[in-house]
Amino acid sequence: MLGWARPYQRRLLAGDVSAGVIVAMMMVPQAMAYAMVAGLPPVVGLYASIVPPLLYALFGTSMTQSVGPMAIISLMTASSLAPLAVPGSALYGVLAAQLALMSGGLLLLCAVARVGFLANFFSRPVMSGFTLGSALLIAWGQLAALLGTGAPHALPIVPMVSSFAGLSVHPASAAFGILSALALLWARRSLASLLRRAGLAPGAASIGARLAPMLVVVVASAVVALAPGLAAGVATIGAVPAGLPTLNLATASSYWSALLQPALLIGFMIFLISMSSAQALAQAGGRAGDEPAPAPVKPAANLELLGLGVANIGSALSGGLPVTGSMSRGAVNHAAGANTPLASIISAALLALALVAPTGYLALVPMPTLAATIIVAVLGMLELETLRTALRYDRSDALALAGTAGGVLVAGVEAGVVIGVLLSMGTLIWRASRPHIAVLGRIAGSEHFRNVERYPGGTAPSVLLLRVDAFLFFGNIDAVSARIDDELAARPGLRHLVLVLSAVNAIDTSALFGLADINRQLAARGVLLHLAEVKGPVMDRLKAVKLLESISGNVYLSTANAWDALTKA
Amino acid sequence: MLGWARPYQRRLLAGDVSAGVIVAMMMVPQAMAYAMVAGLPPVVGLYASIVPPLLYALFGTSMTQSVGPMAIISLMTASSLAPLAVPGSALYGVLAAQLALMSGGLLLLCAVARVGFLANFFSRPVMSGFTLGSALLIAWGQLAALLGTGAPHALPIVPMVSSFAGLSVHPASAAFGILSALALLWARRSLASLLRRAGLAPGAASIGARLAPMLVVVVASAVVALAPGLAAGVATIGAVPAGLPTLNLATASSYWSALLQPALLIGFMIFLISMSSAQALAQAGGRAGDEPAPAPVKPAANLELLGLGVANIGSALSGGLPVTGSMSRGAVNHAAGANTPLASIISAALLALALVAPTGYLALVPMPTLAATIIVAVLGMLELETLRTALRYDRSDALALAGTAGGVLVAGVEAGVVIGVLLSMGTLIWRASRPHIAVLGRIAGSEHFRNVERYPGGTAPSVLLLRVDAFLFFGNIDAVSARIDDELAARPGLRHLVLVLSAVNAIDTSALFGLADINRQLAARGVLLHLAEVKGPVMDRLKAVKLLESISGNVYLSTANAWDALTKA
Repeated sequence: MLGWARPYQRRLLAGDVSAGVIVAMMMVPQAMAYAMVAGLPPVVGLYASIVPPLLYALFGTSMTQSVGPMAIISLMTASSLAPLAVPGSALYGVLAAQLALMSGGLLLLCAVARVGFLANFFSRPVMSGFTLGSALLIAWGQLAALLGTGAPHALPIVPMVSSFAGLSVHPASAAFGILSALALLWARRSLASLLRRAGLAPGAASIGARLAPMLVVVVASAVVALAPGLAAGVATIGAVPAGLPTLNLATASSYWSALLQPALLIGFMIFLISMSSAQALAQAGGRAGDEPAPAPVKPAANLELLGLGVANIGSALSGGLPVTGSMSRGAVNHAAGANTPLASIISAALLALALVAPTGYLALVPMPTLAATIIVAVLGMLELETLRTALRYDRSDALALAGTAGGVLVAGVEAGVVIGVLLSMGTLIWRASRPHIAVLGRIAGSEHFRNVERYPGGTAPSVLLLRVDAFLFFGNIDAVSARIDDELAARPGLRHLVLVLSAVNAIDTSALFGLADINRQLAARGVLLHLAEVKGPVMDRLKAVKLLESISGNVYLSTANAWDALTKA
Repeated sequence: MLGWARPYQRRLLAGDVSAGVIVAMMMVPQAMAYAMVAGLPPVVGLYASIVPPLLYALFGTSMTQSVGPMAIISLMTASSLAPLAVPGSALYGVLAAQLALMSGGLLLLCAVARVGFLANFFSRPVMSGFTLGSALLIAWGQLAALLGTGAPHALPIVPMVSSFAGLSVHPASAAFGILSALALLWARRSLASLLRRAGLAPGAASIGARLAPMLVVVVASAVVALAPGLAAGVATIGAVPAGLPTLNLATASSYWSALLQPALLIGFMIFLISMSSAQALAQAGGRAGDEPAPAPVKPAANLELLGLGVANIGSALSGGLPVTGSMSRGAVNHAAGANTPLASIISAALLALALVAPTGYLALVPMPTLAATIIVAVLGMLELETLRTALRYDRSDALALAGTAGGVLVAGVEAGVVIGVLLSMGTLIWRASRPHIAVLGRIAGSEHFRNVERYPGGTAPSVLLLRVDAFLFFGNIDAVSARIDDELAARPGLRHLVLVLSAVNAIDTSALFGLADINRQLAARGVLLHLAEVKGPVMDRLKAVKLLESISGNVYLSTANAWDALTKA
């Protein structure tokens, strides 16, 4: 906690200040837009951009992470609350904060239970597919606001498509929306190089280009203010209450159990998204002009859980919504010079100032423009490199990616998380169920035994040495048993089977029972089962359940011992 | 299909006939009781004991499996249908058959997709915990019928406990129920040894004891018939319509989507329960007095999916409920002499005969007695050996077992399946995230390289050989990366890192990106990354994505080649 603050060096300050200012400018339209994705008033997004980053600065792990509202988490919030309350109602706001509270509480529980390894429940292709599906769903969901059709929020995609039938486009709104989108797309493609040619340093130019959403929002609001005739009938954000968030302790007591499953899924995705953002930032390495950086600090999963848990509870208590670390803001923060979490503290302070100052100008921001910033931002999340690589490299991973993306689009974002976990685990179980098993032979004139497929080695008709190169568990013990059956069928003279466990780090309870079954079946066929090179920790456990006494053969320290004893016998 | 029928030898007939008769006698009370657990009229259980075993005999894999209604699957059926229809209503019966149809269809789909490896989604401790929780839930659910309190069916356990408050026990019903239960418990404990002492062969005695439920049901029905005064107010089964099941094509078209998730979970459990029963039967080995058996045929998962899929569709078309292979009936079938599926065909034919004959006598079976047979049967499913072993052997497996059992009891049997999958996968991911990684050293005067912790071997300050003993995937690539960081921190003079991939059977897409990250980070610190002993199939894939060209170092055929080239350089 605050490990960075004690030895704070003044040379870091300039970078932290400039990053704080730039992220704050990026955050204003983004926070309002992502509150809109969640079905909440824009000011709620601003509230969630003040307290959570402050708390994450105190408790989190990443130096340059930017915690706040994030598109996918907002989508999940909307999809969880849709069956429970009407967007815009007081209950809806209470439930959004309650969801942040519960997600935060679950993340804290996970931190205490030290189950950070849960981040490994999603493979990279599945995460990529989940992001792809969610981004399309978010973009699609904002089309109505972009075109001013006033279609209801409806998820997932099938009812959403049908909800468009019979709606008519509002021309002025569509003009605002489409022009804003075109401006943003142009800025993404060309603004950085234009700024470079105008004389800015490459780093500054690319940061400048990231402020395009702020600029577009300001220009569009100015048009509304100066030419109200042009903007007739265009929805705007409307009055944003001035003042800092106040302490929110409201909860709807009859909704705890209905929110439990959404809170679990949202908490899980908050963790995954923030971890992958923190990892990317740790790997980003030094910026041009920096002194050589020390080895990057890799994010510690359990500490990250703690920081995110506290940040979400803070968001709930200040009337916000579930938050997480955002890759796009984190990257800007890093690129703009952030050295420590002081940058986040500065940007939170600036957002607080913006709320204390008169907020009347925010009321003029046209909704179609905000929708355009969301659509362009999530289209930027579409990362196709993983899909391209997986297609060439491993079809099953490409299938898992497509299955997760399709699951999100067809069954919704919550079902998509479950589908993603199942597909990650499915590919894992499928691969793990084919462990590498080698028949060993003796290298002539030595004590060494190697895979006979790669080194010609001595074997004996009555003794078979099998080495399994995987820990033994419920998913591969049947494969080991089947391989033994095959070897036995091919070796009628076999009397001794030696399992060489030099690469077996662990044997789970299922595999323990499996070994006992293998022992029994071998005995029924007149073959003795021996073990060799059992590792210390594995040996200790096997002794506790007396497996070593119950097997028909012996336990040998080394393969050579087993070989000598059994071939001479 | 019918592979056993062509070479059918007459010497197998006696065993098949006696097993067919005995299983039929065991099946009558069991089928009616498990229909009751599912909230269906008893006759539905009898229907589901005719067509499904016939179809399984044609399409299934196990020689002695007994397919029909089963306690846990009936519990899942009841829990799935409870929110959709009132037990006893026509809609409820239609939905039960529709659930069997959908589960069967999904099982067939899985057979076609050849995804039999899905059986590996449950570890043995989790399966044991699931059975434990379900058995307690079933026993608890039958208490009301046993005591005649008339409490409503309510699952899971929390509402069930509260539903008992304020209900009063019906003395005559309780007398029937408790006496039946005591008789059954006594029979389980002592009948087999009593029959042995009376001169029966041990095998015959234990089979005789398994017919106790039939005997108790007959005696209780006789009491109802002969002394109606004693049985006043005791609920009985009531009229069972005579006649064979007719073709049922009724479905409730608005319920397809509501039944999809239950059908998935039930289909999954049908498969798991039947596979573990078939595996146990395959391992059961020879009976006393048999000729030496050939090597047992291990159940082929994809064929088992086919047999179960067809059996469940058959159950639906004959107006039944979801069915699976039952361990307890399978064991009796095997012990009673069944050699081939002909035994199942005979018992199905006998049940059909029983339905064609007058069925008036079935009407008198008292419900408390049927409840007693269920309670005693499921208490027999409580297998504590796995828990005992896991407690001594591996706490995390014991925890997974207890967590699954608790999940079933608190959150219900459907949530229990999901919790079980997550706990199985959690223990797997946790173990897999700690792969075995060895630093290799050269055995003096040879071309061999071994783990330096076990064999003193030559090393060099500028070259590090690391062998990873696991396939590389999303769950362990971060651990590999962290280990490399540790080794680098301990070896300031390092210039070359060689990853020896001799035990790496596969590298998934996530690990591929992870290797690219490792390469980049090593390069930033002035260390070259080399690969050695890459397996053929792995090499082919890596070539497809040009990883081998992008790494900073070289690819060596053998560790010795790498060592020679790098230490001489």
